[in-house]
Amino acid sequence: MSYPRVALLGLGLIASSMFWAMKRAGMDSHVTGYARSQATRDTARRLGLCHEVCDSVAEAVRDADLVVLAVPVGAMGELAEAMAPHLKPGCTVTDVGSVKQAVIDAVRPHLPEGVEFVPAHPMAGTEHSGPDAGFASLYDNRWCLIVPEGASEQATARLEAYWQALGANTERMEVEHHDLVCAVVSHIPHLIAYTMVGVADDLRRVSDQEVIKFSAAGFRDFTRIAASDPTMWRDVFLTNKPATLEILGRFTEELFALQRAIRTGDGQLLFDYFTRTREIRRGILQAGQDTDAPDFGRAAVRK
Amino acid sequence: MSYPRVALLGLGLIASSMFWAMKRAGMDSHVTGYARSQATRDTARRLGLCHEVCDSVAEAVRDADLVVLAVPVGAMGELAEAMAPHLKPGCTVTDVGSVKQAVIDAVRPHLPEGVEFVPAHPMAGTEHSGPDAGFASLYDNRWCLIVPEGASEQATARLEAYWQALGANTERMEVEHHDLVCAVVSHIPHLIAYTMVGVADDLRRVSDQEVIKFSAAGFRDFTRIAASDPTMWRDVFLTNKPATLEILGRFTEELFALQRAIRTGDGQLLFDYFTRTREIRRGILQAGQDTDAPDFGRAAVRK
Ligand SMILES: NC(=O)c1ccc[n+]([C@@H]2O[C@H](COP(=O)([O-])OP(=O)(O)OC[C@H]3O[C@@H](n4cnc5c(N)ncnc54)[C@H](OP(=O)(O)O)[C@@H]3O)[C@@H](O)[C@H]2O)c1
Ligand SMILES: NC(=O)c1ccc[n+]([C@@H]2O[C@H](COP(=O)([O-])OP(=O)(O)OC[C@H]3O[C@@H](n4cnc5c(N)ncnc54)[C@H](OP(=O)(O)O)[C@@H]3O)[C@@H](O)[C@H]2O)c1
Repeated sequence: MSYPRVALLGLGLIASSMFWAMKRAGMDSHVTGYARSQATRDTARRLGLCHEVCDSVAEAVRDADLVVLAVPVGAMGELAEAMAPHLKPGCTVTDVGSVKQAVIDAVRPHLPEGVEFVPAHPMAGTEHSGPDAGFASLYDNRWCLIVPEGASEQATARLEAYWQALGANTERMEVEHHDLVCAVVSHIPHLIAYTMVGVADDLRRVSDQEVIKFSAAGFRDFTRIAASDPTMWRDVFLTNKPATLEILGRFTEELFALQRAIRTGDGQLLFDYFTRTREIRRGILQAGQDTDAPDFGRAAVRK
Repeated sequence: MSYPRVALLGLGLIASSMFWAMKRAGMDSHVTGYARSQATRDTARRLGLCHEVCDSVAEAVRDADLVVLAVPVGAMGELAEAMAPHLKPGCTVTDVGSVKQAVIDAVRPHLPEGVEFVPAHPMAGTEHSGPDAGFASLYDNRWCLIVPEGASEQATARLEAYWQALGANTERMEVEHHDLVCAVVSHIPHLIAYTMVGVADDLRRVSDQEVIKFSAAGFRDFTRIAASDPTMWRDVFLTNKPATLEILGRFTEELFALQRAIRTGDGQLLFDYFTRTREIRRGILQAGQDTDAPDFGRAAVRK
């Protein structure tokens, strides 16, 4: 039920983790890989990433039954255009982009008749990037959202089975809803973390050394989030504009309400707000999407 | 060099961790404890927290050489007033509050002549609270900020040695600077996390179930931060008003600049901003204040 030949286009965190997860799952697919730069292709060869690293898109996709676009969202269209003439008739194209409407708009026009396009988005990642950042368990117990958008049931179900074999749970979603949900649970939190770290870095009255030395829970987590790849995140915000701006508008509205409560000394409003948000956390722990360990994230510091 | 008798007033996360850390350090101090509610005192007795749990403040502080105020910032003044008549002459009073100017203003007026007051703030915590949330290693390799503000060198140095024995590093700081640094590295990050989780909870177009199910890195961390104790954080924002409002003003300014860049499609600005914030993260890793493990926080999910 897996794909005999898989092509990974882009060899960063997401694609390399897919390869290691395929290996771990014992899939017997033949995997070709392509990356834009010689440096990344060399690293991939050194690491044994993919059975064959190709120097051109054409070579990589030739004969592939599944082609995975695993580059920043803003680069998907160009890549799709370059590969399109070389696709095997009847193959399936998918992507792993964090935004779906923009990717569909950029990719679909280039695809020839008879090629299935099943957009997908594994909701898993770290702040690291590049071909050496991947690991086999990245997708374990994480969600991979599938946006069928006109693909056949057969092609969709096959891609779902593939992602499940990599360790993920899958769920189908409408494209617009996907982009909104992701703005809430991922994109805007990243933007906020970037902003807060930027503020700390700007503030001349507090030195960088102090920010680093005394970084407490809260800020420390923000710095990790704000260490994520700048190209990827630039593209996310440029391409998920409507949802991003909607959620950002709501966020500043609520922040202003809390700011006013601080200014006027409205302790009851603050208390009630802070009480309500605890429930969401409880839900996430129950759903097994995080751990409740009191020393969360400090293991390596301790030793 | 330690204190023969220590009184812990308030028996939550911070005080209970202090007791377990004292025990681990093999200090031979006699520790009395007091908490407002019968329920907390009962739990403390059941856990063996403190050598003696007292039903009144007066009893708890009688004969104590060090008295630690470990209640929410807004409750410090009242507690100081209640204990003041019963303090042993020449003892040292300290606190662990997250805000320092407000605590000094609330506590100092009540203290009799000859009692030393050395405010302190251990920069360590979790999102859990209460007498059963503590653990001995909470302060290991964390900073405890000391704000001497008129205390004698002897009393200050003695408190520093005590905190070092609990595992912490200590650093002296001016009170106003303390409140600003903490607004940046802790208070505003918490406010922002609370706000973002509140926005997610409000949004009718995205259900709570979805927010919980698909919570990705970023948002997941925010929910942990936003699960912290509502009373403690209400008090922090009400009492650290000037620094909080200053940093909040800067934060919204920067957020608006990024929002405009998204709206106008200024990818270069976004890219440069996101690149700059990576450096801070590098500093924090080098300073040993966090771990770089790729599966950060997912250990318990995996098993
Ligand atoms: N990281 C996450 O947390 C995460 C989570 C879910 C989804 N995603 C999505 O997954 C995709 C890949 O992310 P990633 O984290 O794997 O990124 P990454 O580690 O930075 O790798 C990106 C890969 O894309 C290539 N690339 C970059 N710009 C390109 C261009 N203009 N043309 C052709 N190739 C280009 C890079 O090639 P070179 O190395 O040769 O430059 C690299 O191989 C993105 O669409 C992202 O939105 C990421
Ligand atoms: N948690 C952190 O991350 C952290 C980090 C650094 C500093 N701090 C500071 O440490 C202090 C204690 O925090 P914590 O985390 O240990 O809190 P906690 O776990 O919630 O415990 C607070 C304790 O204070 C008592 N208390 C609450 N309100 C009181 C009142 N009005 N009068 C008398 N006692 C009262 C509670 O008694 P009952 O149980 O009987 O209600 C409880 O024993 C706060 O000032 C906080 O700002 C906290």
